[in-house]
Amino acid sequence: MTANHGMMEVERWGRFELDLEGPKEGNPFNNIELKAVFSYENRSIQVDGFYDGEGQYKVRFMPDKLGEWNFTTICNHDTLNKKQGSFTCIAPRENNHGPVRADSQAHFAYADGTPFYPFGTTAYVWNHQGEELERKTLETLKNAPFNKIRMCVFPKHYDYNLHEPADFPFVGSKAEGFDFSQFNPNFFAKLEKQIDELNELGIEADLILFHPYDRWGFSDLGTEGDDRYLKYVVARLGSFRNIWWSLANEYDLMNEYLKTKKMADWDRFFQIIQEKDPYQHLSSIHNWHNPEIHYRNNNHWYDHNKPWVSHASIQHHDNYFVPEWRETYRKPIINDECRYEGNINHGWGNIMAQKMVQLFWEGVCRGGYVTHGETYMHPEGIIWWSHGGELHGDSPERIAFLRRIMEDGPAKRLTPIYYGWDVAAGKMGEEYILAYFGDSRPSFKILPLPEGKRYKVELIDTWEMKIIPLEGTYTNESKIKLPGKPYIALRITETE
Amino acid sequence: MTANHGMMEVERWGRFELDLEGPKEGNPFNNIELKAVFSYENRSIQVDGFYDGEGQYKVRFMPDKLGEWNFTTICNHDTLNKKQGSFTCIAPRENNHGPVRADSQAHFAYADGTPFYPFGTTAYVWNHQGEELERKTLETLKNAPFNKIRMCVFPKHYDYNLHEPADFPFVGSKAEGFDFSQFNPNFFAKLEKQIDELNELGIEADLILFHPYDRWGFSDLGTEGDDRYLKYVVARLGSFRNIWWSLANEYDLMNEYLKTKKMADWDRFFQIIQEKDPYQHLSSIHNWHNPEIHYRNNNHWYDHNKPWVSHASIQHHDNYFVPEWRETYRKPIINDECRYEGNINHGWGNIMAQKMVQLFWEGVCRGGYVTHGETYMHPEGIIWWSHGGELHGDSPERIAFLRRIMEDGPAKRLTPIYYGWDVAAGKMGEEYILAYFGDSRPSFKILPLPEGKRYKVELIDTWEMKIIPLEGTYTNESKIKLPGKPYIALRITETE
Repeated sequence: MTANHGMMEVERWGRFELDLEGPKEGNPFNNIELKAVFSYENRSIQVDGFYDGEGQYKVRFMPDKLGEWNFTTICNHDTLNKKQGSFTCIAPRENNHGPVRADSQAHFAYADGTPFYPFGTTAYVWNHQGEELERKTLETLKNAPFNKIRMCVFPKHYDYNLHEPADFPFVGSKAEGFDFSQFNPNFFAKLEKQIDELNELGIEADLILFHPYDRWGFSDLGTEGDDRYLKYVVARLGSFRNIWWSLANEYDLMNEYLKTKKMADWDRFFQIIQEKDPYQHLSSIHNWHNPEIHYRNNNHWYDHNKPWVSHASIQHHDNYFVPEWRETYRKPIINDECRYEGNINHGWGNIMAQKMVQLFWEGVCRGGYVTHGETYMHPEGIIWWSHGGELHGDSPERIAFLRRIMEDGPAKRLTPIYYGWDVAAGKMGEEYILAYFGDSRPSFKILPLPEGKRYKVELIDTWEMKIIPLEGTYTNESKIKLPGKPYIALRITETE
Repeated sequence: MTANHGMMEVERWGRFELDLEGPKEGNPFNNIELKAVFSYENRSIQVDGFYDGEGQYKVRFMPDKLGEWNFTTICNHDTLNKKQGSFTCIAPRENNHGPVRADSQAHFAYADGTPFYPFGTTAYVWNHQGEELERKTLETLKNAPFNKIRMCVFPKHYDYNLHEPADFPFVGSKAEGFDFSQFNPNFFAKLEKQIDELNELGIEADLILFHPYDRWGFSDLGTEGDDRYLKYVVARLGSFRNIWWSLANEYDLMNEYLKTKKMADWDRFFQIIQEKDPYQHLSSIHNWHNPEIHYRNNNHWYDHNKPWVSHASIQHHDNYFVPEWRETYRKPIINDECRYEGNINHGWGNIMAQKMVQLFWEGVCRGGYVTHGETYMHPEGIIWWSHGGELHGDSPERIAFLRRIMEDGPAKRLTPIYYGWDVAAGKMGEEYILAYFGDSRPSFKILPLPEGKRYKVELIDTWEMKIIPLEGTYTNESKIKLPGKPYIALRITETE
């Protein structure tokens, strides 16, 4: 936001912030209700403001239309009521495409129409590790292929995650207890800075609002506490264009093991976000159980068909099922946790890079998206999946290679096609087919290309990251010679 | 069978054969009903004889008790009726342990109690390839680790299987048609010789009685034809101690695609075998569909709980489910087809040796058994899975290594235990645990060993075929350092 000719300017999908001074007494987090109505011609949008401590109040807003916007505050305290003003929304900077939305049922695009292909990673509590490591994480991300990161508001208590975090979202301490009715504005200011820094790197923050890995009581704030927390987070962060709301990491562990939440709570949380977030950021919820691993008798997935779920955020070890999930939910599918490259003791964290890359190709070719994670043992216990730091694995450069293939040429809107149960394949109309053979290693394949059209075929060695055009053109039932080694894909493009 | 002091001698679980001369006119296959009753003290067992062409009739019998056996024939033709005789059943030769039975609910043993661990292979129509190639197959088997082979009575029509077989089980030809009421004794004599040669090599013949890959009409003999064929096969082969009855390869393809069989037919076939086979050889039926591959909406497995099924013969790409199948059927589990080592175009036939070996270890550690197959492209189209010939892959020597581990020490009767969803593990009481980590590569594991006992631990590199004893002994919750590479197992044995 800049001032120009006396009128404040805010870029489209940028952030307007109104700073106000108000009462300090009592608990303003609880007692002061501040809102503002932003209007553009006949349209008006109401957003919540929030108390930022030390008598400071803020109202933030992300405008989506160029031109003049006016606002008026509404508050139950006179000093903050009926404050008015205006600003001009100007064209966005080049790298600002707006927030990401679901698009074409199964895919994503930025608000300006630019396709977005999520190539996410996971560093659950990188933001709780103190300045030095956080710097390193951002430096790593700058050179990594990831455009989305899963990260938690709350600190994490779990294997390899036993040290105390740098700061807490609530006033108080582990020893003396926390006051869940008083937020810690410094904590949130730092989180906001981190999310802005991710935004500068072109990375969406898939912000996890609740999770079960807790020793501080944050998984059990009580109904009032949960709702107050959610409203506060939305008031502070809703205007950040790179925010995605991930209601939980492994929500079902909180329902079934911790018993701190019920299914109805998650419905209510989604509803609060729907009500409070005028930008309708992407919203999802991530499971622990999956029916295949747990002998098919234990399917407790959240119903991603509910209208407030923008996309299915799945934990599953096999992207074979992406087409089934697409059919079931008719929404974009992201397998946000499908095991991590690494060598720790846990099964979810000790796959080879080859397998991680395979999971990406299988998910993407079947018309879904996949999230990375890395869990290599480290002398100082700094593991990317949780702490951030540095990447040590061999999958990221191969994920970058796949991302380049997706971003090359026209927008990719892959729909799965059946080329045999052992092949992951997707197409766009009759113009483009991506088929991947995983760790199978056929020496040829007979592929049923659409009739009466001609195609050029490129052989992709997804591990060696090479693209080799095949001689000639292909049509109808085509026998395509393959090198008989694993991790091969074909890119098939319509030609004259 | 040998003559000694005037009395015929037959080793226990050997084969007694009575040869008779009788009528040639008409169709003796249809018109002559020959049986014999074999008696031992007060016990009597009735078996069917069969017409062997050229006026020759035979009755075969496998005695299971040492001592004197008497017999009398029963026939609807006078010349073959009331023929009487006797023989002495003597102790078996050293390598004759009798037929294999289900044992300890989930496992197998020979009739003399020696444990049998099926390490099968698949060469569907090796027996239809002519003398030279058949010799080569037997030579290969002599040096291979396999003690069971899946093979078909009928020839096979399918990709890579388009040449005409050496001979047919029925009188006639493809051009002029077959007479399903007249068998070709030469064909069966040759099949019998092959099964005996397998027996000499210690190999069980898992004989597939029906299959869908047909261009000669053998998948559609009609009800009368099917039943006559089954009875004839049982009369000829029931007395072979290494026979297993596999009612079908991929029976559901015949029900659903060819529409030549119905579920009730399979029930009847099992019943005929139960009724006609006094030895109650192992009997199973093998599926095509599997619920995981076919998006879980298409489970058409035969109900292996039916009393005539001795063990579940499964086709499935993932041995993760062995414990579930064990619970469901309470019978031994053999995954008889879980993809083959090779490089052909089909998904079921192009996995790497690493994966084939992994499937074996996962199945065995989870308390089941697994069958091998090999499908490498070959300049003359000789592919082990179907034609036999030579083995070219890298899995057989690793399968041999696993077989040696199973055969080493006390009888292995593994029951699956849960060491995490990513680990395949089985135990015998509290004395012995085999745990396998597959293509995961943890750098350590914390294993809950039974309390208050001490164990020695050996690290097994299943690919390099090395067994490395770990220093010291382990008890209770034990942290075990691992090399952080794939295909590692642990053998954990109780010690002082």
